Amino acid sequence: MAIMRFSYLGPRGTFTQMALMQISEDESEHVPAIDVPAALRMVRRGETDFAVVPIENSVEGGVNATIDSLSNGTALRIVAEMLVPITFVLAAPAGTRLENVKRVGTHPHGWAQCQNWISENLGDVAHVPATSTAAAAAAMAEGNANFDAALCNPLSAEQYGLTVIAEGVADNPDAVTRFICVGPENIPLPERTISDKTTLQVQLPSDEAGALLAMLEQFATRGVNLSRIESRPVGDSLGRYQFSIDCEGHVEDERIQAVLIGLHRTCPLVRFFGSYPSATQVPITLRPGTADQDFAAARTWVASLLPNS
Amino acid sequence: MAIMRFSYLGPRGTFTQMALMQISEDESEHVPAIDVPAALRMVRRGETDFAVVPIENSVEGGVNATIDSLSNGTALRIVAEMLVPITFVLAAPAGTRLENVKRVGTHPHGWAQCQNWISENLGDVAHVPATSTAAAAAAMAEGNANFDAALCNPLSAEQYGLTVIAEGVADNPDAVTRFICVGPENIPLPERTISDKTTLQVQLPSDEAGALLAMLEQFATRGVNLSRIESRPVGDSLGRYQFSIDCEGHVEDERIQAVLIGLHRTCPLVRFFGSYPSATQVPITLRPGTADQDFAAARTWVASLLPNS
Amino acid sequence: MAIMRFSYLGPRGTFTQMALMQISEDESEHVPAIDVPAALRMVRRGETDFAVVPIENSVEGGVNATIDSLSNGTALRIVAEMLVPITFVLAAPAGTRLENVKRVGTHPHGWAQCQNWISENLGDVAHVPATSTAAAAAAMAEGNANFDAALCNPLSAEQYGLTVIAEGVADNPDAVTRFICVGPENIPLPERTISDKTTLQVQLPSDEAGALLAMLEQFATRGVNLSRIESRPVGDSLGRYQFSIDCEGHVEDERIQAVLIGLHRTCPLVRFFGSYPSATQVPITLRPGTADQDFAAARTWVASLLPNS
Amino acid sequence: MAIMRFSYLGPRGTFTQMALMQISEDESEHVPAIDVPAALRMVRRGETDFAVVPIENSVEGGVNATIDSLSNGTALRIVAEMLVPITFVLAAPAGTRLENVKRVGTHPHGWAQCQNWISENLGDVAHVPATSTAAAAAAMAEGNANFDAALCNPLSAEQYGLTVIAEGVADNPDAVTRFICVGPENIPLPERTISDKTTLQVQLPSDEAGALLAMLEQFATRGVNLSRIESRPVGDSLGRYQFSIDCEGHVEDERIQAVLIGLHRTCPLVRFFGSYPSATQVPITLRPGTADQDFAAARTWVASLLPNS
Repeated sequence: MAIMRFSYLGPRGTFTQMALMQISEDESEHVPAIDVPAALRMVRRGETDFAVVPIENSVEGGVNATIDSLSNGTALRIVAEMLVPITFVLAAPAGTRLENVKRVGTHPHGWAQCQNWISENLGDVAHVPATSTAAAAAAMAEGNANFDAALCNPLSAEQYGLTVIAEGVADNPDAVTRFICVGPENIPLPERTISDKTTLQVQLPSDEAGALLAMLEQFATRGVNLSRIESRPVGDSLGRYQFSIDCEGHVEDERIQAVLIGLHRTCPLVRFFGSYPSATQVPITLRPGTADQDFAAARTWVASLLPNS
Repeated sequence: MAIMRFSYLGPRGTFTQMALMQISEDESEHVPAIDVPAALRMVRRGETDFAVVPIENSVEGGVNATIDSLSNGTALRIVAEMLVPITFVLAAPAGTRLENVKRVGTHPHGWAQCQNWISENLGDVAHVPATSTAAAAAAMAEGNANFDAALCNPLSAEQYGLTVIAEGVADNPDAVTRFICVGPENIPLPERTISDKTTLQVQLPSDEAGALLAMLEQFATRGVNLSRIESRPVGDSLGRYQFSIDCEGHVEDERIQAVLIGLHRTCPLVRFFGSYPSATQVPITLRPGTADQDFAAARTWVASLLPNS
Repeated sequence: MAIMRFSYLGPRGTFTQMALMQISEDESEHVPAIDVPAALRMVRRGETDFAVVPIENSVEGGVNATIDSLSNGTALRIVAEMLVPITFVLAAPAGTRLENVKRVGTHPHGWAQCQNWISENLGDVAHVPATSTAAAAAAMAEGNANFDAALCNPLSAEQYGLTVIAEGVADNPDAVTRFICVGPENIPLPERTISDKTTLQVQLPSDEAGALLAMLEQFATRGVNLSRIESRPVGDSLGRYQFSIDCEGHVEDERIQAVLIGLHRTCPLVRFFGSYPSATQVPITLRPGTADQDFAAARTWVASLLPNS
Repeated sequence: MAIMRFSYLGPRGTFTQMALMQISEDESEHVPAIDVPAALRMVRRGETDFAVVPIENSVEGGVNATIDSLSNGTALRIVAEMLVPITFVLAAPAGTRLENVKRVGTHPHGWAQCQNWISENLGDVAHVPATSTAAAAAAMAEGNANFDAALCNPLSAEQYGLTVIAEGVADNPDAVTRFICVGPENIPLPERTISDKTTLQVQLPSDEAGALLAMLEQFATRGVNLSRIESRPVGDSLGRYQFSIDCEGHVEDERIQAVLIGLHRTCPLVRFFGSYPSATQVPITLRPGTADQDFAAARTWVASLLPNS
């Protein structure tokens, strides 16, 4: 069997690579990309089989680079989602003791997300900036670091052979980032499970408040819940919006098909980016009258009313 | 070809018979019934081919006897609707002059609907009650009336050979009653026109305000307008409602089928009483995205997203 | 203290009088009226202090005569509602045994509502029509009845001194009719309780499906439930509707005031017919954010945003 | 009168400063800030009177840094909005001719937004990256540029005394950015005009699809249009959203107050960021029943129904 190639938001050792490792075989090839559009471009060009990129962060919100790169360009399909808790470790050469750490090397974002933890646990230590959390780990491993410990993710610590002297470092221990695995348009749909998501891009017919309401009614009348909605500009003028939406269900569910038909009829643009298992696999609670058999029974009845039925 | 038999809300000469004459051939058979349930029962038992009964009156509202008789019992199909203006004539023996009319014979309802006209045009005249407006015409024709003119509808005047000495008699000249022609369930559907109506009975899943809203949304999300809505009790307890609804469109319209599917899924009871041409034939204005081709294009798109498509 | 005068839908001994007796003092005066408009007219003219009339029947639905008589004419106020179970008794002279009843005198409506009970309990007995169920009781009491027992309501049996030989006679033992007690417009509002109703008449701005939806949203956005909704024609043309509505709450509730403001702004006609305790006194379940204190807190906040606040 | 101090998203010569110059007096003080949070922090600390920052871009969408910095921290008030077209100029030393430009210095973003224009008008020229478009202009002015022309905004060209050799340089000539001027919470509200906007932050009560619909209904039932809606994470877990909203109207409008009351009642968090004149001053089209006098008349009517009114 062929070795799978995955592009991902690099560099090596990012949280994105941690997400990738949740789904890839050991022998698969990991290709870091300099940014999200580059990672997706490799799939569009056939240079990799899949791309792994972040789509949503519990603190920062939707990742616009991912949403916009999916929307612009040839169609792609999301085949999986992965959740990665955003917690750090303090990594240092073997033998380093926590009370001796006076200077911490890391990217400013990492520093910002752990400031309270550090001040409570390390007291008054200095921040030495690095270009990425992984770069701090690399410098530490190469022996040319002007700091005592690197604040990086667990994967970097492992990749650079450092010793973890503190783990679960985070001001918000529930911070989590959601990643998606994206393949080319012609890839087979993942099979239905008890808990799937479908990702869509929907442009509104007009900029009236009523247009958004009417669009959401297309979901509500079929009992379909949204798990994410992001507004993005259409790009031609202020006040014109499109929406990036994750809804609960699989395109093989009748209720999702009914939503898609309703959206296609009434919105100038609807794009389908795939149906895939939810990472948590918490079963979807169906509202009465929205199961496949309800749709099938209803269609059978309506057909019986028609001539030549 | 067989002669058609029509039962109708009698007696002979009613506005209902005027409605019936709008659609029946000359040689068809007219069978008066004592009330609406009786007229429909004749169709259910095969004693007549069709029944003509009133369903809606611009002054009195929905005709509950008709709505409830349709709902209770074996299924029937509405195949036509007819509008009849509710205006009367003053009918008398030939030679009678308007200024000599001092006593007017008619049913109290007829008298009530023309009181202003009469007081303005005839001055202070007396009302002689009759059991129906047609009965007043009959008595006048038979020569044993104790009044000078009958207030009746134009058909009665003609049937009893009376002379019309005033026409267009009505306090509200726009008063109109809507009648329907009802056949057995297995009758072929009338063909689609530019302006059809579909009649439904819909029971709500619960007695919450939200249930009525949700039911109406099933119409709104498909751009289907209602031309009549009547609440009727389900009959088992106070506060439980069902609705008798006329909506614009034919069951062969995709948007009507989509509404029916949505109602069937979410309401405990939906009954279909037929699709038939509207009497006025004012073309229906379609909202964007609700034409048959919009549904067809949307279904084709959704099908293309599914496996083995 | 003055003796209260009540007009009611007569004749003496009707279910309406049973409703009236739920709320009136022993010494109050009961004035039977020949029909609902007549009963209300007496209040409008000051001839009686209150009128008691039926408004809703669990089998027959809304009582149009009451709804329309309230709507047309000077304003009135509903001050109470009463529920009366629609069950009958068999009443006969003392000593009559059930197995000897071969002919039953009653009004055809009463007969229709008890047909199954009678055939199961009395077997094959004959119906002797009377002009009202009370008239049957009267004839029996006067000794000139050509039947063996009167099928009437418990009140009639008592009023005419008959012996009840069977009670709880009804095919649908849950059948109940709701009555209202109506006073003049200037009567004080009943005090708030844990469970009130408010009765309204609302005309729609247009005949679009959307207009009904928008009207119902005025209730839904304030979490106000409807317990009755009846469509009635406006009367000027087919397809123009107004609605008679009972909603849960008292006009002194902030959420009801907000609904009324919303309706007054957007509908061509809104009439208020009173707030009064519900007959069952089942406490209203408030949705989050709809209690008086929620409105008060919100208004205080908004006021704080305004200049000179 | 005191000289006003404005912090703004620097450095000197940005489009943000162009926006600031639309509203500031000549003698006002302009204080560049390194990022949006810094600009707002200066207002919060009283170091400047106002801050000018971008909030929405027709190409990139909502400016999350601005939305989030407004939401987190002490309350602020938006007092004005300004629109700035995002078009560039080619600026060079006096005497430079367009056909001699072979290398263009600018920030990569600026280069990306003008690529088509440059290739069509200049042919095959090289891009020399600079840290900002203003920095390119500065280098050119100081005589130490290794390029022939700077691609910068008109303000930078003027500030650095360069000659504009091409203007209106942009691939999308309609690209526009919307800026806001923000003061402290206790600043007086701008007066009402014919066209105002109100900016809000609203957190949803739950993550159901229905919650967003219900929130939007609060606007719809008062006929209030939205001109911007951005979803932002609440920050505690995936799938929990709050919304940044601009709606049409002023908090002194009754309909906006009614919306605010409805939101405050039903949403766990609502924050008000000010009412201010729209930049275009296109008059707002009021829907029937939403003018101040409609609310006033409705409240008067409801008050008349209450005791002691």
